[in-house]
Amino acid sequence: MSLLIVGSLAFDTIETPWGRREKIVGGSGTYCSLAASFFTQPRIVAVVGEDFPAEIMKLFESRRIDTRGVELRSGKTFHWEGRYGFDPNQRTTVKTELNVFGDFRPRIPAEFKDNDIIFLANVDPDLVEVVLGQVSRPKLTALDTINFWIQTKPEALSKALERVDVFFANDEEVKMLTREVNLIRAAKKILERGPKIVITKKGEHGALVFGRDLFFGVIAHPCEDVVDPTGAGDSFAGGFLGYLDKVQSFGANKKEIRKAAVFGSVIASFAIEDFGIDRFRRLAAAEIEERFQSFKKLVSF
Amino acid sequence: MSLLIVGSLAFDTIETPWGRREKIVGGSGTYCSLAASFFTQPRIVAVVGEDFPAEIMKLFESRRIDTRGVELRSGKTFHWEGRYGFDPNQRTTVKTELNVFGDFRPRIPAEFKDNDIIFLANVDPDLVEVVLGQVSRPKLTALDTINFWIQTKPEALSKALERVDVFFANDEEVKMLTREVNLIRAAKKILERGPKIVITKKGEHGALVFGRDLFFGVIAHPCEDVVDPTGAGDSFAGGFLGYLDKVQSFGANKKEIRKAAVFGSVIASFAIEDFGIDRFRRLAAAEIEERFQSFKKLVSF
Repeated sequence: MSLLIVGSLAFDTIETPWGRREKIVGGSGTYCSLAASFFTQPRIVAVVGEDFPAEIMKLFESRRIDTRGVELRSGKTFHWEGRYGFDPNQRTTVKTELNVFGDFRPRIPAEFKDNDIIFLANVDPDLVEVVLGQVSRPKLTALDTINFWIQTKPEALSKALERVDVFFANDEEVKMLTREVNLIRAAKKILERGPKIVITKKGEHGALVFGRDLFFGVIAHPCEDVVDPTGAGDSFAGGFLGYLDKVQSFGANKKEIRKAAVFGSVIASFAIEDFGIDRFRRLAAAEIEERFQSFKKLVSF
Repeated sequence: MSLLIVGSLAFDTIETPWGRREKIVGGSGTYCSLAASFFTQPRIVAVVGEDFPAEIMKLFESRRIDTRGVELRSGKTFHWEGRYGFDPNQRTTVKTELNVFGDFRPRIPAEFKDNDIIFLANVDPDLVEVVLGQVSRPKLTALDTINFWIQTKPEALSKALERVDVFFANDEEVKMLTREVNLIRAAKKILERGPKIVITKKGEHGALVFGRDLFFGVIAHPCEDVVDPTGAGDSFAGGFLGYLDKVQSFGANKKEIRKAAVFGSVIASFAIEDFGIDRFRRLAAAEIEERFQSFKKLVSF
């Protein structure tokens, strides 16, 4: 089992109608690897500044996340500031300080050359080639993207799409990328551009999984107290890919793809119950299994 | 089996990015009774003006909808005009001409005194009492409402809520009614006000069914070509209640509630495939069953 995650380790300053947190630890790599760690032992490749807390590195290690790919550079860690309204699906970026993440050029340690799954979480699409060029061919590659890259690097993103098997994006991003308002047509357009599986994340409305001869709709596990929606999408990807790595299924088995999406939804439903990664600190494997079972009941008829 | 529907028979003028239709037949009662007619033989109580097409009354009869409660008055039929953007969940009302519907006071024919289920579809909340006062106690009462009544008649709506078992509303309405942004908390608040079941319709994101010890999430059947979203919610209600009437289940059997919601979603997914009620004109029972089965596959894991 080996899942390599390339993403950001960051500080987030978050304001929601229920509170504000200054410089708490976040980032796509953080959420994704913690989420995946409940299924497999992920490896992470990222860059941090000198201000990144040693406590978090210890937390990663205690969760058996291999951090040998985390590069420490002089300077400050990536810092994002965002604000949520009453609708958790709507967020505004207040400030983005890239800092050491600005010219992040992932270096894959020798120990990480062979991987079953590689996930490029919200990184510059130009880095897809940089990463894949340093490793032997994985069984599954996955990419997540954000509006910023769709707008600023459409060509690099197109090339990246040709190289990956699984593409994650939220509904707004999928529409922007394809200039298509209907999510099914949009997903079909993306499937024509390379990926075998397109996962459209819809926040509180769940996610849709599209593939050749595959369509699966998963609702979001209902949550009365969405404390902080940050990282829900990255956690979904972590749960999805972590599960596939655990069961060693790389895209051909549709039943496992469906189960992976449910585990993605389940793990994301925990992420949003507290600020930052706090819910993951106290999450037990039994809770995940329990919620998976309750989820089954929730949608059965 | 007897399902009584009190609602509007209307003309709709509809503009979508894909076309415009002038004065085609619509209305909550129309969509709901046609949808229900695929499961049971509904009775309809409504008012029309002299301009309402005889052809539609014949269509109702051919679908075994009992139209003895349709009152013909001198004047014009209710006429609504609306516009949809590229996002079918967003619509703007351009014009509302109530005409004979303006002072609609439902008179229940003697033949309709006994009903298993009564549905008040988007009518003035003051009419709930007017209708229920004319009939013997049904086994199940249901109410749908719209923003307009939430804003203009909150007290009458509160009273109406105390009288009904099932309450339908879309997500925006549920939030407005409860001043609560979280849909689960909103539904719980409404459950405290009377109804045993609250169904939150979320358009392309499906619907959530809440009850005491009941939570069920149903996605919308994926549709690549949403031609006209008008009537989807009314069709959902018609399918939901029509199915419950068919199986003679009035709220206690949770499994039937879940199945009813899936049939509601299935029938709504047909309604939006063509302008107005056109898809219902050529819909076959076998298609409904087939889509129900494909729906099962869609959400199973």
